[in-house]
Amino acid sequence: MTDSTKTTENNNVANANSSAMASTRRGILGGVGFGLAATALAACGESNNAAAKDDVQAPAVVRKKRTLTMVTTWPKGLPGLFTAAQRLAARTKELTEGELDIKVYGAGELSPALQAFDDVASGAADMYHGAEYYWQSKSKAFNFFTAVPMGMTANEIMGWIDFGGGQELWEELSGQYGVIAFQGANTGQQMGGWFRKEVNTLEDFKGLKMRIPGLGGQVIRELGGAAETLAGGEIYQALQTGQIDATEWIGPWNDLALGFYQQAEYYYGPGFHEPGSSLSCGMNRKVWDSLTPRQQQAVRVACNEANHLSLGEFTYNNSISLQTLTQEHNVKLRTFSPEVLNRIDEISKDVRAQAGSGGGLEKKIYESFEKALSANALWGSVADGPFLNSRSKG
Amino acid sequence: MTDSTKTTENNNVANANSSAMASTRRGILGGVGFGLAATALAACGESNNAAAKDDVQAPAVVRKKRTLTMVTTWPKGLPGLFTAAQRLAARTKELTEGELDIKVYGAGELSPALQAFDDVASGAADMYHGAEYYWQSKSKAFNFFTAVPMGMTANEIMGWIDFGGGQELWEELSGQYGVIAFQGANTGQQMGGWFRKEVNTLEDFKGLKMRIPGLGGQVIRELGGAAETLAGGEIYQALQTGQIDATEWIGPWNDLALGFYQQAEYYYGPGFHEPGSSLSCGMNRKVWDSLTPRQQQAVRVACNEANHLSLGEFTYNNSISLQTLTQEHNVKLRTFSPEVLNRIDEISKDVRAQAGSGGGLEKKIYESFEKALSANALWGSVADGPFLNSRSKG
Repeated sequence: MTDSTKTTENNNVANANSSAMASTRRGILGGVGFGLAATALAACGESNNAAAKDDVQAPAVVRKKRTLTMVTTWPKGLPGLFTAAQRLAARTKELTEGELDIKVYGAGELSPALQAFDDVASGAADMYHGAEYYWQSKSKAFNFFTAVPMGMTANEIMGWIDFGGGQELWEELSGQYGVIAFQGANTGQQMGGWFRKEVNTLEDFKGLKMRIPGLGGQVIRELGGAAETLAGGEIYQALQTGQIDATEWIGPWNDLALGFYQQAEYYYGPGFHEPGSSLSCGMNRKVWDSLTPRQQQAVRVACNEANHLSLGEFTYNNSISLQTLTQEHNVKLRTFSPEVLNRIDEISKDVRAQAGSGGGLEKKIYESFEKALSANALWGSVADGPFLNSRSKG
Repeated sequence: MTDSTKTTENNNVANANSSAMASTRRGILGGVGFGLAATALAACGESNNAAAKDDVQAPAVVRKKRTLTMVTTWPKGLPGLFTAAQRLAARTKELTEGELDIKVYGAGELSPALQAFDDVASGAADMYHGAEYYWQSKSKAFNFFTAVPMGMTANEIMGWIDFGGGQELWEELSGQYGVIAFQGANTGQQMGGWFRKEVNTLEDFKGLKMRIPGLGGQVIRELGGAAETLAGGEIYQALQTGQIDATEWIGPWNDLALGFYQQAEYYYGPGFHEPGSSLSCGMNRKVWDSLTPRQQQAVRVACNEANHLSLGEFTYNNSISLQTLTQEHNVKLRTFSPEVLNRIDEISKDVRAQAGSGGGLEKKIYESFEKALSANALWGSVADGPFLNSRSKG
């Protein structure tokens, strides 16, 4: 990198810079004013704050408290996901100095997981924390804002949403239902799943009964397997009784906690179906519009921070947990063979195209996503890809 | 992932959760109180804020303004780096409602780039935005908080610093100089560099004159090359005149702007020497201690957000710029051969060990880093690595 002690302002740099700043304003800040937020102001007396050393004094601000209800698609307490929603809520409260008090509920407490979006759209709840692909019965294009097979990694979807036009398209899609949503956590790369037997060739997928919902399930069906949808709490027993031969869940951190290694000893990567799942914080649009610009900004910043912390947290805990699984529980770690991954890659293109084949907006989202993905794929193949494959393991 | 509609609270989940929350409090929030920050309070009259619908009213807050000086190691206007510092400053001002007004200066405006740390330590400036490895003449352990050869990717260093004990060690190291620092941007994976001729074998590195500073330069020297240190503005001409045969800089986004493709047609990945450079926001410790808890929190949140946005911004712009380089400028994209990468990996272990061979704290930092890296390496080799290598390019 640079150790320049000179300025390098030439035309190229200046142009790239002004274009970057423009896309920043357009892409990230959306409807939120970039200047100082207007809040209720009232002149007041002297501050007794010893830490403030400068002389200029701003007007006093009066805070009114407001309680917002956040439903989630996560089992209450689920590490990394429910806790990300809690962290986001706590930070929003701090940033607004108590003005916004977000109460976070686990799946089933107020709304069943898959009903979170509807309840926020109707105003029954104010906010949700969840995964957009759970709303795919409304529009398959919602999948692109969480994860699609052989799609974007965490860093890539962060780039597309904030700098590649994704956020605007997302707001257009969610806006049809009276909802606005932002990135609010990311699991990073997931795992392909737990298998009771090795799967070396395409033949091994024929007739395989695997718990894998959504678009990932479509890929498994195209491979000749039977994709099933089971709730998290039902998986362990289904593996134990032989109802299923394999299951995916999240990644080493969460999978370790559920003990799947006791029932299936082969653990396959990568998570071709969810290469970096972006999780979302949504809000009823009327509630959003009723917030002050400063409150809107607090929610946006808390979402961005939650995404940052979540990605680091998953990366660290997945790494440590994978060591535990292989060293203490004798899990047999495997990578899908090139034959299998190449076929999955082909199928995934069709699955994504189907997800983007709805109306005009669905097509626009699909095309924007694929355009960025194509650029990401080249970059990843020469940067992080060969790096991670050549670094020695301990 | 989950589509559970049930709670899965068993002992494992509950334990993992409480441990995650504990590490969050310890790891991220550091000295900043997690509760509502104490600020100067004064009772005041009714708010006229129509948006606040609840009835409870908090006391009014009086704001005092304070101007802070931030020196940077970046050429003024440099996209991605100087602009990240500007974004962080703007957000801090917004979050403190104008209390903290951070003035950002380019390298050389107030302090020469490499003097930024000293000027903040002495109190000549309040803050810096830069890269910790620029302070390696004080302690080689600073390298671990930016990037080291064959070290951590962006997501991995985010995990180590916030969840693996890195932040505490960093504060211990910086504290020796009266400075405290946080993550404040990340470039993601960089590129290995621009070469006038192909480098296929180890033999091709013998006698190679390459512009590559710091620990990356040590690796090139071990390979038999001559590593040189040149400021960013001097590289183009050095390539043109044949003073150097090769150069690294940052990645496609920034490299495109400087036009290196006009002088060297082979562009090699990955950035073995900087696989995900974490950039930092530092502050004079006395200035930090004089901030209110709420102001400290605003700086921390703005740093976290800047890191999040920066990583997405680099990923997106590097991807698009690499397409431009290959499609419009006929750049020949190459990956270092397994022979070369394996040797670099061996050398890098020694280079990292040397960087961690100082006193007791240096050793502690090195050992903590290597422990996390070892876990990261296993995870990356089964997750993002094979994924990025098997995804088709367009």
